[in-house]
Amino acid sequence: MKPSTAGFAFHIDATCGQARAGRLTTPHGEIETPTFMPVGTQGSVKTLAPEEVAATGAKIVLGNAYHLWIRPGAALIEAHGGLHRFCKWPHAMLTDSGGFQAFSLAKICKESEDGFTFRSHLDGRAMHLSPEVAMQVQGQLGADIAMQLDVCPPAGASIDTLHQAVERTTRWAKRCLVAKKPQQALFGIVQGGTSIELRREHGAMLSELPFDGLALGGFSVGEPIPHMHEAMTESAVFLDPERPRYLMGVGTPQDLLVAVAAGVDMFDCVLPTRNARNGQAILRSGRVVIKHARYKEDQNPLDPMCACPCCSSGYSRAYLRHLYFAREILALRLLSVHNLWVFGQLMREARHAIRLGQWDTFRITWSTSGKDDPP
Amino acid sequence: MKPSTAGFAFHIDATCGQARAGRLTTPHGEIETPTFMPVGTQGSVKTLAPEEVAATGAKIVLGNAYHLWIRPGAALIEAHGGLHRFCKWPHAMLTDSGGFQAFSLAKICKESEDGFTFRSHLDGRAMHLSPEVAMQVQGQLGADIAMQLDVCPPAGASIDTLHQAVERTTRWAKRCLVAKKPQQALFGIVQGGTSIELRREHGAMLSELPFDGLALGGFSVGEPIPHMHEAMTESAVFLDPERPRYLMGVGTPQDLLVAVAAGVDMFDCVLPTRNARNGQAILRSGRVVIKHARYKEDQNPLDPMCACPCCSSGYSRAYLRHLYFAREILALRLLSVHNLWVFGQLMREARHAIRLGQWDTFRITWSTSGKDDPP
Repeated sequence: MKPSTAGFAFHIDATCGQARAGRLTTPHGEIETPTFMPVGTQGSVKTLAPEEVAATGAKIVLGNAYHLWIRPGAALIEAHGGLHRFCKWPHAMLTDSGGFQAFSLAKICKESEDGFTFRSHLDGRAMHLSPEVAMQVQGQLGADIAMQLDVCPPAGASIDTLHQAVERTTRWAKRCLVAKKPQQALFGIVQGGTSIELRREHGAMLSELPFDGLALGGFSVGEPIPHMHEAMTESAVFLDPERPRYLMGVGTPQDLLVAVAAGVDMFDCVLPTRNARNGQAILRSGRVVIKHARYKEDQNPLDPMCACPCCSSGYSRAYLRHLYFAREILALRLLSVHNLWVFGQLMREARHAIRLGQWDTFRITWSTSGKDDPP
Repeated sequence: MKPSTAGFAFHIDATCGQARAGRLTTPHGEIETPTFMPVGTQGSVKTLAPEEVAATGAKIVLGNAYHLWIRPGAALIEAHGGLHRFCKWPHAMLTDSGGFQAFSLAKICKESEDGFTFRSHLDGRAMHLSPEVAMQVQGQLGADIAMQLDVCPPAGASIDTLHQAVERTTRWAKRCLVAKKPQQALFGIVQGGTSIELRREHGAMLSELPFDGLALGGFSVGEPIPHMHEAMTESAVFLDPERPRYLMGVGTPQDLLVAVAAGVDMFDCVLPTRNARNGQAILRSGRVVIKHARYKEDQNPLDPMCACPCCSSGYSRAYLRHLYFAREILALRLLSVHNLWVFGQLMREARHAIRLGQWDTFRITWSTSGKDDPP
C-alpha cells in the first residue's frame, strides 16, 4: 500500500550498489538525499541560528515532540502557526514521537498497550503518550514529517523483549496511521535490535503499510558498533526501496558511510553539536580535541581545507582553545557550525559520488580512523 | 602638549550645546562619535561573532588586558599578530589597562607606587602590574588605543584616598607616556570620585599631557546615580575639548544621554550583553524581562520598530522566553545582539541629532523611564 500524503514525493535519481541518491519533496522544499538532519530538540539546533544551520547544507532539521510537548507546550506552538514559524526555520522539519524520551528521560515511565504513562522530567506532572496523543502533538507542532510512536528496547534486550517490541510497534503503527493529520507525512519505525531475522520481518511488515517513509530505530543504544553496522546493513534492504529510509539517532561519519552504502537516505544525530559543546571538532581525518595542550599555540584553523564559517574565517585552534577554556559561548558556536558543516559536506560528497557512480572511490577518501588529534 | 601618534586624529564636525558629533581616525578605520564600544573582555564580545557585533553599528570594541594577559597570555596573542587577528576583529580596538580588574578580581592585591602586586584569580600565580608592564602587555595585544594604568577608588572613598588616587594616577600617566608603544594611541584617565573640584584639577592636569584622548574613570562604582550624573556632567568640560573624551564602564541608555549632553564621545559597558544573559531586553521604552509570565504566549517581537536581527527575523517573545527557560544559547545570542543594536541605534540617532542641531528634541524621544515590562 503506497502513501499518498499531498505534497510529498521521493525519487531516486541514481544508485551505486545499494547506495542511492535522490530527492525528497516536502511542503517546505526539496531535500537531496542522502541527507543529515541536525537535531533541534527544543526548537533550536543548539548554539546556532536557523540561517547558520541551513548554510551547513541542512535543509531539514529534527524537533522533539516529547520536549516541546512538555515545554513550551504543543498548543502554544500551534498558536504561533506551528514549529516552523515558532523557530523561524523555513525549510523542512521532522519530529520524533517522544516515545524514546518518555522512556529514557521521564520519571517512573510505565509502558502498556496504550502507550507510555510517565511523569515529566521537568515538573513531575503525570502525562500519557499513546499513539493517538503522539499524532495529535506532532500534528500541532506541524512538522512536514511525523514519526510513529514505537517501543525501543535497550541493547542486550532478550529476543522475547525484542519480539514484543516489534509486535507492539506494529500495532501502534496502524493506530498512528489512523490518527495522523492528513497533510502530515508519517514514517514507520522498524525495531528488532541486532536480530536480522526480526528486522527483516518487521521491515517487510511495515513496508506493507502506507507510510511515507520507513525508519530504522533502536540502533546506537549501546550495542557493539560492528553488530550495529552489520544489522543496519542487513536491515536496510528489507525496507521498501521506493520510500525514503531513515536511520534514527546515528552517528559518526563512519556510521553514516556504512549506512549510505546500505541504502539509507536520512540521518539525524546529536553527535556533531554535542561533541562540539564538549570541545571536539570533527575532521575528515579524525577529531581535534581542542582542550589538548598541543593546540595551545596552534595558529592553524581546524582544517585549512574546510569551507565552514569557522575555518574560512581563519579562527586559529589556539583561539578556539582559549575561548573554550574561558567558557566563551563563541567557542561552542564555532565548533558546532564546523561539525555540522563537516556532516553536510560528507552528505554533499556522498550524493555527488553516487550520482557519478564513484561511491567506492569516494568512500575511501574519508578516513574511517576517527582517531583523536590526527597529525 | 598635543598628541602625535601616527594614524590617529579626532575631528569635531558639529556641536549642540556641549554635545559633539565627530570622527575618530584610527589605523583600523574611522569611528563616528559619540560611539559605544561593546566589551570583549576575553577576546570575544560574549555570545557574538565579530561580524554580528559590527552589524550593530560598533566599529570599535574593548578588550581587557588583565584577562588576556592571564589567559591566554600576551605573548601568544602577539605571536598571532595581535588581538585584532587573534579575534578576527577587523575594526578598531581599545584595551583597558587591567588595573581595575587586578584590584577587583585578583586575590590579595597590594597597591604600591610601582603598581599592583596580586595573585591571578585563575591559578594564584604572583603577578605584578606596573605602568610599564601595562604598556608592555597592551603593546603586545596591539589594540589601536591603550589605556594608562590608574588607581580607581571605590564609591565612598575619603577625600584623602581620592586625592592620593589622583596623584598616583598622574605619576603613572607620565610613566605610561614614556613606556608606551609609539604606534599605539594612549588615553589618560581622570579620577576624583564625585568630587568636582578634584575632577577639575585632574582633568586640567592630564589635559596638559600628550594623551591621544582623555577618559573619565571611577564612575559607576557604586555611587548614587544622581551624584554620578552631576559629577560626570561637571567633569567632562574640564577635559581638553579637542581630544576624544571617553566615559569608562557606563552605563544605561539614560546614563549615555546624560554623558553625550555633557560632551562625552566614547563609552563602554557590559550592561547590554550582561543584561541579555540575564534575560533582559532593552527597549526605547524600558526593559522586557523575558522570564516574566506575561510573555508566555506573546507572539510579538521584542520591539516591532527595531531593525536588529532578532526583531527583524520576527522571533516572538514567547519563543525567546521558551529558549531562555530551556537554557538554549540562542536566547542569549538573540538578546545580546538586540541590546547591542539598541545601543548602536542610540548612538546613531544621537550623532544624527547633533549634526542636525536637534539634540534637545531627540533626547526626549528616548524614554528615560527605564522601567521593566513597559506596556
